[in-house]
Amino acid sequence: MSDKQTEISTLGEFGLIENLTKSINIKNQSTIKGVGDDAAVLDYSNHRTLVTTDLLLEGVHFDLRYVPLKHLGYKAAVVNFSDIYAMNGCPKQITVSLGISSRFTVEHIQELYEGIKLACEIYGVDLVGGDTSASVTGLTISITCIGEGEDGKIVYRNGAKDTDLICVSGDLGAAYMGLQLLEREMIATKGQTDFQPRFGGKEYIIERQLKPEARKDIIKILADHNILPTAMMDVSDGLSSELIHLCRQSGTGCRIYEERIPIDYQTAAMAEEMNLNVTTVAMNGGEDYELVFAVPLEMHERLQQIDGIRIIGHMTKPELGCALITRDENEITITAQGWNAFKQ
Amino acid sequence: MSDKQTEISTLGEFGLIENLTKSINIKNQSTIKGVGDDAAVLDYSNHRTLVTTDLLLEGVHFDLRYVPLKHLGYKAAVVNFSDIYAMNGCPKQITVSLGISSRFTVEHIQELYEGIKLACEIYGVDLVGGDTSASVTGLTISITCIGEGEDGKIVYRNGAKDTDLICVSGDLGAAYMGLQLLEREMIATKGQTDFQPRFGGKEYIIERQLKPEARKDIIKILADHNILPTAMMDVSDGLSSELIHLCRQSGTGCRIYEERIPIDYQTAAMAEEMNLNVTTVAMNGGEDYELVFAVPLEMHERLQQIDGIRIIGHMTKPELGCALITRDENEITITAQGWNAFKQ
Repeated sequence: MSDKQTEISTLGEFGLIENLTKSINIKNQSTIKGVGDDAAVLDYSNHRTLVTTDLLLEGVHFDLRYVPLKHLGYKAAVVNFSDIYAMNGCPKQITVSLGISSRFTVEHIQELYEGIKLACEIYGVDLVGGDTSASVTGLTISITCIGEGEDGKIVYRNGAKDTDLICVSGDLGAAYMGLQLLEREMIATKGQTDFQPRFGGKEYIIERQLKPEARKDIIKILADHNILPTAMMDVSDGLSSELIHLCRQSGTGCRIYEERIPIDYQTAAMAEEMNLNVTTVAMNGGEDYELVFAVPLEMHERLQQIDGIRIIGHMTKPELGCALITRDENEITITAQGWNAFKQ
Repeated sequence: MSDKQTEISTLGEFGLIENLTKSINIKNQSTIKGVGDDAAVLDYSNHRTLVTTDLLLEGVHFDLRYVPLKHLGYKAAVVNFSDIYAMNGCPKQITVSLGISSRFTVEHIQELYEGIKLACEIYGVDLVGGDTSASVTGLTISITCIGEGEDGKIVYRNGAKDTDLICVSGDLGAAYMGLQLLEREMIATKGQTDFQPRFGGKEYIIERQLKPEARKDIIKILADHNILPTAMMDVSDGLSSELIHLCRQSGTGCRIYEERIPIDYQTAAMAEEMNLNVTTVAMNGGEDYELVFAVPLEMHERLQQIDGIRIIGHMTKPELGCALITRDENEITITAQGWNAFKQ
């Protein structure tokens, strides 16, 4: 990015939109008409249409003191793709609405858009529309993602049976520890103009926070192995919260084994350094964008052949509730301590 | 609405969403699964999918000092439906994302939702998802609308020919004069606790501002008369701005006749009272949500049979530019003075 800073008012709304969208190339057959009309036109005649939306507000969902705008754009897009994969679908189009306060320049918004476009490039998604407006306070990002699913292969939250296995992809808690580290370093370096945080050996947890990925690869691997989950969600609010959703909607209970929860070394080390219980971090941290899903018991062997997927427990009859079995074999009821923006 | 006021934190995000969405009944065949999963699931196998989105920010797009929350919800939904009709489509689903600051209670948000649901009821649209979050400042409303269009009958902005007629539905400038009146009355009654503005005989312009309608009826009438516009938009930013879009994208110019512009009596009276040029108001006021469209010249007679549609001018070769022919036969270049939130 150059150092040149252009006031948005010099371009106006239409000029800004044109500037941001002029280099967009359409990648998907289902995109008939993208940016530039009253609505985008899509062709979903061979597929089910999936729609999800996310609203990100400055000061609530992100802090620009330590989140680079390009990373923010990337993440804002990816978290929407993640919701489509969590339906066993494939994201194809997004619309991007921005509310922009006067402290942002054209170059700032271009940087944000660079991140959004990069995510679209990597995941094969078309940016097909949006709305851009001034805001009196801070930055607002609202992204809606449209994706395709195959009739009969869409995975809802409510299909799990009480004998199903529960699996999770990747590892958990890293994004939360990354956030704790970013906040600590920001406080530590407060007032210094040459912000040089110490992230050596902690790159993984920082990246998990600032530049998460959606698990497109897991959806493909499951399909390749002929495994169709009975219920699935992505881990955004935290594993505990998602398990409660899956069980409530499926009419089941669950048992999760503490020793089976996948945790990266950096996550564990950082939790210890900060005196946090790493299991609590993994269960409630959120923003992992991993997939948690239920599969029939008979898939057990097929699952064990797959790298990057861990069986962490099983569904039960609903009357048994949701519980975590600790290493010392205690049973702790799972409660959703997930992120609640309305608290306090 | 009862006077009971409940803090949103007592319900939390999931509780609030449940409270707001529990009474939603699905109306459309194309809605397979609405609120309650990672994404909504839609069936657009027999139609093109249309997608549009709008972001409304407190202090920029609306002022809660004189806009009731229920009206705001209604309008926020309707302006999105309007964009789908402007493609000659039919709105079928919306997602609603809300950013809510702590000064709003559960009852406030229920009132906003009442307006959104009423609009959905009247226009036959399903509310299928969204996102609800705390905000540090004010109210943010982001609505995405998905609609269906028929292949070959979708009307873009770029299809007008240089011999086409230009038509507009309803009348223009009323919403802008309604806004002027609301702002004047708010200033006049400032500091008074029993706000009793004087709106007698001005109900139409107030309603056009606070509770606009999308022209579903015009789309049906055009279809009934076998008229397919060659280009169409809805009038949100102002007629001038929309004409420039249509001409630029179609590669045409245009001539609009001042005497042909449809203006309601209340609009004209209010403009005179406020010492505003009513033609300027009609050309640049915006928020009319009428349809402006081009039709082939040979449709002239068919159009004249239709109440509520007015031929206001015609397309020209592009080199003639866009101009308004005044009552005294002067030619004034049309410039987009439309609403630009980024100015100042």
